[in-house]
Formats: sequence, C-alpha cells, structure tokens
Amino acid sequence: MVQSRKTALKENWKRKSLKQPALGELALLQEIRARAAGMATSATVKSRVQLGIGDDCALLRPRKGEELAVTTDLSIEGRHFRLDWHPPESVGHRTLARGLSDLAAMGAKPVAAFLSLGLPRNLTVSTAGTRSWVERFLDGLLALAAEHHVPLAGGDLAESPIAIADIVLTGAVPKGEALLRCGAKPGDRIYVTGSLGGAAAELAALQTSPEDFANATESSAIRPHLFPRPRVAQAVWLRKHGLASAAMDLSDGLSTDLAHICEESSVAAEIDAAALPLGPGATLAMALHGGEDYELLFTAPQSAKLPPKIAGVKVTAIGRILPARTGRPRVVLLTEKNSKPVSVPLEPHGWEHFRI
Amino acid sequence: MVQSRKTALKENWKRKSLKQPALGELALLQEIRARAAGMATSATVKSRVQLGIGDDCALLRPRKGEELAVTTDLSIEGRHFRLDWHPPESVGHRTLARGLSDLAAMGAKPVAAFLSLGLPRNLTVSTAGTRSWVERFLDGLLALAAEHHVPLAGGDLAESPIAIADIVLTGAVPKGEALLRCGAKPGDRIYVTGSLGGAAAELAALQTSPEDFANATESSAIRPHLFPRPRVAQAVWLRKHGLASAAMDLSDGLSTDLAHICEESSVAAEIDAAALPLGPGATLAMALHGGEDYELLFTAPQSAKLPPKIAGVKVTAIGRILPARTGRPRVVLLTEKNSKPVSVPLEPHGWEHFRI
Repeated sequence: MVQSRKTALKENWKRKSLKQPALGELALLQEIRARAAGMATSATVKSRVQLGIGDDCALLRPRKGEELAVTTDLSIEGRHFRLDWHPPESVGHRTLARGLSDLAAMGAKPVAAFLSLGLPRNLTVSTAGTRSWVERFLDGLLALAAEHHVPLAGGDLAESPIAIADIVLTGAVPKGEALLRCGAKPGDRIYVTGSLGGAAAELAALQTSPEDFANATESSAIRPHLFPRPRVAQAVWLRKHGLASAAMDLSDGLSTDLAHICEESSVAAEIDAAALPLGPGATLAMALHGGEDYELLFTAPQSAKLPPKIAGVKVTAIGRILPARTGRPRVVLLTEKNSKPVSVPLEPHGWEHFRI
Repeated sequence: MVQSRKTALKENWKRKSLKQPALGELALLQEIRARAAGMATSATVKSRVQLGIGDDCALLRPRKGEELAVTTDLSIEGRHFRLDWHPPESVGHRTLARGLSDLAAMGAKPVAAFLSLGLPRNLTVSTAGTRSWVERFLDGLLALAAEHHVPLAGGDLAESPIAIADIVLTGAVPKGEALLRCGAKPGDRIYVTGSLGGAAAELAALQTSPEDFANATESSAIRPHLFPRPRVAQAVWLRKHGLASAAMDLSDGLSTDLAHICEESSVAAEIDAAALPLGPGATLAMALHGGEDYELLFTAPQSAKLPPKIAGVKVTAIGRILPARTGRPRVVLLTEKNSKPVSVPLEPHGWEHFRI
C-alpha cells in the first residue's frame, strides 16, 4: 500500500505541509511553481488570467464578447504512452498538444492550462547528473506552452503507482464564432492541414526500435508522433476569415473523425484516395485510420477561396460533402481497382496502438 | 501490457469508435452522456454553458462583469480513497465535493464540472442484479452535482490499471470580488463554519471496521468523511455581504490551512482551544489537524456582525489575527495547563491518512 494523505500533495500547486516531506516532491513543487511563474506570456494572455497559481482557484477573465472553451484530456502510462518507448519530453509535449489541438478544433486562442499529475516517486528522482523523468516531462510540456504563450495557471500533484497526466486547456473565442462539428453542408469541400499518417508511421518505427528514439527532441527532425504540432494558428486564421463550415482535430484518424462530422452535420462524404497528403513513411491505411496526427479536418463552401498554405502549413482539398441518403454509407473512398475508378465504403477504423 | 489506443476512449464524452468495442465501456459512455444530459440545471446555469458534451470543447459564457474560477483535483485509488473502505457513492461524492469546496473558498458559484475518469475494466461491470462500481460512483457524484445545479459539461474516459478521477470545477464570481487568502488584517476575528475533526473521526472508524460503512449513503446519517458538505451557499453569502477579509476551505486541517492564510496575508494568528466546535467523535487533535472537513475558514473585521448561522450552518469565532513578529510562531493555540492559561505554538500537522 502506498503511504498517503487525504488530500493530494498539492492543490493549485500550493505547497501543503507534510509530516515527513519527501524532499524530491517538495523540490518538484517549487520547481513547477518557479518555472510556471517564469514563463513568458503575452500581455493579452496576462489580462485574461487574473490569478494563477497560489490560491484555491485560478481566476480567468475573458474579454467582453468572448466565450471560454474548456477541454480535458487524460494520459495514462501504458495506454497513451510507455516509459520504455517515449522520451519524457515527448510525453510532456503530447500531453499539452492533445489539449491545444482540442482548442484548435474550436478556433479558440489558448488562455491557460491546468495540469493534474500523478507520479511514482522514482520518476521524481534525479540520478547522477541527469534530470529526473518529471523534469524532462516538464521541459517538453513547458516548451510547447511557451511557444503558444499559454501559462500553467494551476493543477494538482499526487503520488501514484503509475504515471498519469490530466491536462485542462481553456481558450477564448468570440461569442457564437467557435468552429463546430455540425455545420458541414452538401457541396462543401473537405480539407486537411499538413499531412496524414506520419504519426502512425513513426509510432510503428518507435515500437520496432525504441532505442533509436530515446534522445529524440522536438528540434531534431519532423516527429509527427513524438512531437505533434497542434494547428492553433491555422484554426484561428480559419475562424477569423469565416471560411470553415465545420471543423475538428484529427486525433482518432480521418475515417473515424470524418464520420463524427458527418454524424453531427447530418451529411455524408466522399474522399479521393489520390488526393490524401501522406506523411513521411505513411501508407494509405495509416493516413485513413492512423490517428494522432493532430491536423485540422474542416469543410468549407465550394465558393470559399482557400490559400495553398495557412500560417505556413499546407492545406489540401481531399473530398466533398454529400447529402445523407438512407442505405448509402456515411463516408466513401474514391480509389482505383484494375485502373478503373471505384467507390468503396470507408468504415471508421481508428488505428490500434499498443497492440498486445 | 494493457491493450490500448493512442487516444483515450473518449474526449468530451464523445463516443469514439473502436475496432473491438468493449460493450461495457460504450454502454458506460452512453449512460454518462444520458445522465449528464438529463440533469436538472437552473436557467442561470444554462445561460453560462453554451455548449456542453458533444464537440471538441465545451463553451462557457460568463456574464458581463464576471470572472471564471477554475480548480482541478486529482483523486487516486489507494491514495485518496480505497476500494475496500469507501462505498463507490462516497468516492463519487468526495471527488466532486473537493472541487466544489475550492469554488466555495473563492465565493464562486458553480458553473460547470468536467470529469476525467480512468478505470479498470472490472469496475465497469455489473454483476447479477447489482449496479457496477462506476454506476454507483456516478450516483454519488451526480446527486451532489444536482444539489448544486452544476452540469457535467465534458471530460475524458480511459481504461486504467487503477481507478483515478480528476475533477475540474468552473465557477462564476463578480470581477474583483473573489474571496482570497491574502486579505486578513491584525485585529480580524477568525471563524469556521460547521464543526471540525468529524471527518478524521469517521475515517478512523472506517479504517477499523469498513464493513460497517459498506452501504453508507448520504442520507443515512451525518457522514463528514464519506459525504462532506461543501459550503458553497455560505461562501456566496459571505462574498455578497462583503464580510470576509480572507477565506479558504479546510481541506488539510486547521493548523495547516490557517498557516496558509497567515503566510499569504503576512500576519500571525491565535486560536482558542476551548472555542473550537468539535465534530461528532472528534478529539482536539482531530479538530486541529484532521483535515478533509471541507468547512470554510475565514477572517472578518472585528466590527463585522456575523450571524450565528449562515444558510443553515453555524458559524463560530475561534480566534484572532495578530501582527506577524519575527521570532513569534505564525499560529499559537490558547489552552490550559494545570488550570492555568498557556499559549503554545501550533505547528502545521496535516492528519496522515492511509498510514503504512
């Protein structure tokens, strides 16, 4: 049995006294508070975060005419990441990226993040000149947070038999202007940002030889699985220009996520296999079902003029929205068989990771 | 190794397709969505929650002149609760109560809750006519949510080797009027709501004979540990009447939490041992250090007229705020030794639960 107290060690990163404090944990709390306090945040973010770490709650102040988008994403050791596969920086980066990508799906600008962290004690210990697992986790998380100017405004910390991280992201969006899943109309074109399937391809390589990735960092190469790029700037651009009729982020894979848009919008869709922008090393199956690419999937009226790139990231038309018809599949894939065009139903098949 | 996917089974309680869905998990998601959708919420709450479960984020719309308080609390099996001690309804109730109590500490009105839940598969299974653990967990959580008119607006769900629940509470408070820890002034009186130490006394009894508590429900008796009552109405009353100079909730125990107020307000304090309102079965030590009472601890100017009860809960003056002086303890306890009044330093000693 673990030794424990009735409350977690921390609420809102506020240090709580312990009868016999473990030095590593207290040092960790101090480090998190210091690093969160030292984060560079823009004046516009600061104006929305009235009170951060240090009281019972953080206080957020959306500006006049704004709504606050809220999302929460749970990452569990052995399920969303593995200690023997993923560098700690990648786990921290991915934890935050999942939440940022949900904000992007709504066209919201990040305001503040909250992190609940459960950790086995050994992950908080530094050994002989190396940084501890959690310090490297924070390196990855805070680097991405700094890039998106999103402060860590609170959270909770507890000892746990396995590593878990729950991330909460809050974002601002003008009232009534959030990008939703439900606005796609027949005739709309379907677009994706970036490329698809690269995350699944990199995960397959990681699974085969994790030692090749042990020291992977964000800057070392394109790392669609280990260091995905949430498309916040691209989504905010789309929202500001009023071009997207529906949007979501590609976390489960195109086949699954497009089915969600069709369901919520009461429409059907067809995808051109030849048009799909494949990521590095990706097969067609990975692009269709791989998931975790954290690209944007969106629809726009045929008349909308989309630029070839938004905020430096390419945009590709991959298909069309159709009217929903009884007896017709929700989503079909236009492809070729024996050099002849065929249309096959595209079932939602999220890529299965961590297979037994 | 667990079988797993790259994302959790759910984001914002949105059902995601699985190649081989486990019926219990999908049924659970459907149950949570249905129960959350069916919750009675007041019109004022509805106006602040523009979009709940079903898209990538929820959308909250604070009213003009309001700030949004945000808090997150992590509960981990073996650390914050035990499956062999706590009835599932109690775990659900306590999960939400911790967050509500943080909102109360700021004088904020609950707006929306978000729940990230990690569960071993067996806790989702109903056996022969009994409700599953998670159904009973939700019974407890949603009953308290309904009482406080706070909708479940999103969350995340994943399979996990141990049970974990991270609760996020958002609340509304007029700009600049949140109750903070930092406003206590020398001369202020110190107050608590309700009684202290009852939660520690009940936990001691639970530890001795958990079988006596297996079917405890909220309505069966006063259950300060199993079913604590967050003091939201009392805190909102205090904030509206502008009486409290500082406030927080008693989660770690009076000795620890009062030290926080003194630290944040740069003051000292003295407590009258004889004035402390002891909970059922509580010793003085439990009242001082027990924690988890989730009562309000607040200070008010000497001139403030506090009623004997606020929203049906008694309020007791227990001491005074003093100037901080170098070499004097932060907090002292006024008590008796051999029938003579003495003043002893009160060190912060949170009660240690689940001792090895």
